[in-house]
Amino acid sequence: MWVNTKNRALQERARAVIPGGMYGHESTRMLPPDFPQFFLRAQGTRLWDVDGNEYIDYMCAYGPNLLGYGHASVESAANGQRALGDTMTGPSGIMVDLAEMFVSMISHADWAMFCKNGTDATSMAMVCARAFRQRRKILVAQGTYHGTATWCNPSPVGMTAEDRAHIIYFDYNDLDSLEQAVRKAGSDLAGIFATPFRHEVFADQFVPCAEYARAVRRHCDEHDALLIVDEVRAGFRLDRDCSWTSLGVQPDLSTWGKAIANGYPLSALLGSNKARQAAADVYVTGSFWFQAVPMAAAIATLRDIRDGDYLERICHTGQLLRDGLATQANDYGFKLRQTGPAQMPQILFADDPDMRIGFAWAEQALRRGAYLHPYHNMFINAALTPADVLLTLEATDAAFAHVKKTRDSIPAQTNSKVLARLAGIKAMTEARATTVA
Amino acid sequence: MWVNTKNRALQERARAVIPGGMYGHESTRMLPPDFPQFFLRAQGTRLWDVDGNEYIDYMCAYGPNLLGYGHASVESAANGQRALGDTMTGPSGIMVDLAEMFVSMISHADWAMFCKNGTDATSMAMVCARAFRQRRKILVAQGTYHGTATWCNPSPVGMTAEDRAHIIYFDYNDLDSLEQAVRKAGSDLAGIFATPFRHEVFADQFVPCAEYARAVRRHCDEHDALLIVDEVRAGFRLDRDCSWTSLGVQPDLSTWGKAIANGYPLSALLGSNKARQAAADVYVTGSFWFQAVPMAAAIATLRDIRDGDYLERICHTGQLLRDGLATQANDYGFKLRQTGPAQMPQILFADDPDMRIGFAWAEQALRRGAYLHPYHNMFINAALTPADVLLTLEATDAAFAHVKKTRDSIPAQTNSKVLARLAGIKAMTEARATTVA
Repeated sequence: MWVNTKNRALQERARAVIPGGMYGHESTRMLPPDFPQFFLRAQGTRLWDVDGNEYIDYMCAYGPNLLGYGHASVESAANGQRALGDTMTGPSGIMVDLAEMFVSMISHADWAMFCKNGTDATSMAMVCARAFRQRRKILVAQGTYHGTATWCNPSPVGMTAEDRAHIIYFDYNDLDSLEQAVRKAGSDLAGIFATPFRHEVFADQFVPCAEYARAVRRHCDEHDALLIVDEVRAGFRLDRDCSWTSLGVQPDLSTWGKAIANGYPLSALLGSNKARQAAADVYVTGSFWFQAVPMAAAIATLRDIRDGDYLERICHTGQLLRDGLATQANDYGFKLRQTGPAQMPQILFADDPDMRIGFAWAEQALRRGAYLHPYHNMFINAALTPADVLLTLEATDAAFAHVKKTRDSIPAQTNSKVLARLAGIKAMTEARATTVA
Repeated sequence: MWVNTKNRALQERARAVIPGGMYGHESTRMLPPDFPQFFLRAQGTRLWDVDGNEYIDYMCAYGPNLLGYGHASVESAANGQRALGDTMTGPSGIMVDLAEMFVSMISHADWAMFCKNGTDATSMAMVCARAFRQRRKILVAQGTYHGTATWCNPSPVGMTAEDRAHIIYFDYNDLDSLEQAVRKAGSDLAGIFATPFRHEVFADQFVPCAEYARAVRRHCDEHDALLIVDEVRAGFRLDRDCSWTSLGVQPDLSTWGKAIANGYPLSALLGSNKARQAAADVYVTGSFWFQAVPMAAAIATLRDIRDGDYLERICHTGQLLRDGLATQANDYGFKLRQTGPAQMPQILFADDPDMRIGFAWAEQALRRGAYLHPYHNMFINAALTPADVLLTLEATDAAFAHVKKTRDSIPAQTNSKVLARLAGIKAMTEARATTVA
């Protein structure tokens, strides 16, 4: 019996001492009302909310959980280091071990710097690109997410025009738009940010064409600017190397976070020798950047990534889920838009303009033990088994049945933030269609 | 017998895979050559480098170590939470407990938001101040440190003029300079940053006068702007409340980090009801901001801060050290400039323009087991005992004796980065003297 009384009580208390009750990407304000805000426990691929409801978790802490919550080899390495020291007056020697190991696994990388947030890594990359040839213009694809610093925050609140004076936007995967932006930057082009694949909220995902990736590389080479691949979200879920390796393109800088220490707080900027001097010249730091425990956890995580079959397994279970959902949707007369890599799935309903069906379906699945997200890309972790996928499909089968039965009485979407975001996506899609036509 | 062969070998390996061999505030590039870059272990008030040399540590990880490395109640709380979960798909319910507790301890605060870096907290504060009345100008005292984001980075490398288009600088503790800056901001004044006391590297520390603190408050009130006290470095080392409480001034926002979870990675923005809506309107987040373990550690740390005598003890041992050093310096014919609160001491030598004496003295103390910093403010932790101070004074006595004996043969300062910083401090001091005259 699914209940949410403890969660409701905590939300009430949170409203008094946290602005708006919660903030950031883990706020449930834009999710269906039943989605719990607070959690008690996590283990393997499972998650328990504060009311004790158990879920098979397809969000993986929005990415960090790659090998399973509390993965034994990672915890063992972290515990060993913790007995020695964590935040100390200087780094542990294992920082060098970690840098050597990471660099040995990523084709383009000759060096590494470690930090805490994904935003730390992307901001360091931007500053390095500017320091490289003392130029200013940074190209960013419209609508891609690179963190919440002032130069890249997706919200305009509290930002000034000058924060993005030297950011030039272009359309992702669009060679003409990219070329126009490069021309606009002219001799002041410092760097181009690239997201491995397109993974925006509320929208279908897609992988860019190799021609686009090669064009980004070519423009950077022709203008002596740096290509930055932002792996914070996708890193190690597409490849054991940089995600654009399969497209035949290597960046000068890559930014990593989320999954690299399986949930321990660590992010990183990796770079080639070309960018080494620029990286040595910039000043960047943070109180907890030299913590030893997350570095020990990262070494264990990278070892599993390098030597294990986690990638084959998450691709396999991701595809099992995708295939099962496609069959169920078809059986119940729904059409799903399942996009992106199966191990980072986005699941949207076709013919569901205000997402009322998707929200109702996700809520029903949630109440039956499957934590699926109605508009954000999900993440598969290596602890998920084919048996877990079958359990998930039982929950989704019941959710499809429920939504089919109640289809005509599902209330319209009333979450104003959701409606605003959907309107934004629609406007952007139409603008692109016009440009193409 | 003090040795540093393992450290040297690690530094050599680091140079290959980390730009410049190390980066940030824990880089030893500006320290005397003997200072180790890499550490093995930390416990209580003690620190061991990778060669096994043991030190009584007066840097406390540059602040985070407040109660002692591996403090039992903090570790116990962290371990308990770790068995449940850390980085999950949402925060733990203890996030609400922590917010309630923190807010109950800080007079001005009605709400709290948690993040990772000190820079996250100061940047959030700046964005909140701008969102508050949709204004742009932020006043910052020249030379104060608020992190390494583009708006506040102390280095110009990789920065653009636009990054600080709306930052107005003034002289700390100078009412006229402050008023001029307020006038310059005019109706666009969003907020004023205040450092609790002046704690710059290479310079004497000082506490501002109460009149200055009240003037900052008055200007904010008259212009409907927000006063932000940046407690990241000083927080909980001067007071169990906001540091300016003793000056009779309460801020609208305060930023915290370093010591609030005794070394676990956590920072925070606290605010009054006046700033609540602005804080709810901004979008800020990070992959690891909702980690439960650092929050559990913070609850245990705050409990010790609130209920224990840590503050009285660090003030006492800090004063013991200061008095002992003053006596020793006098006995050996040196004059020390010991400034700032005794529990956050800065120790510089008078008549030591290129710091050759200070560097030689710190190096000798280091080789005898006392890790003292020659130009950065230090931190006392509550695990330091009077007996530890006596041991430290044995090391410093020998260091004074050595420096006295070799005084005329101590080579001039050759570290070009140190010389450049000293020249900068001298120029700023002379400029101020001219202004005052």
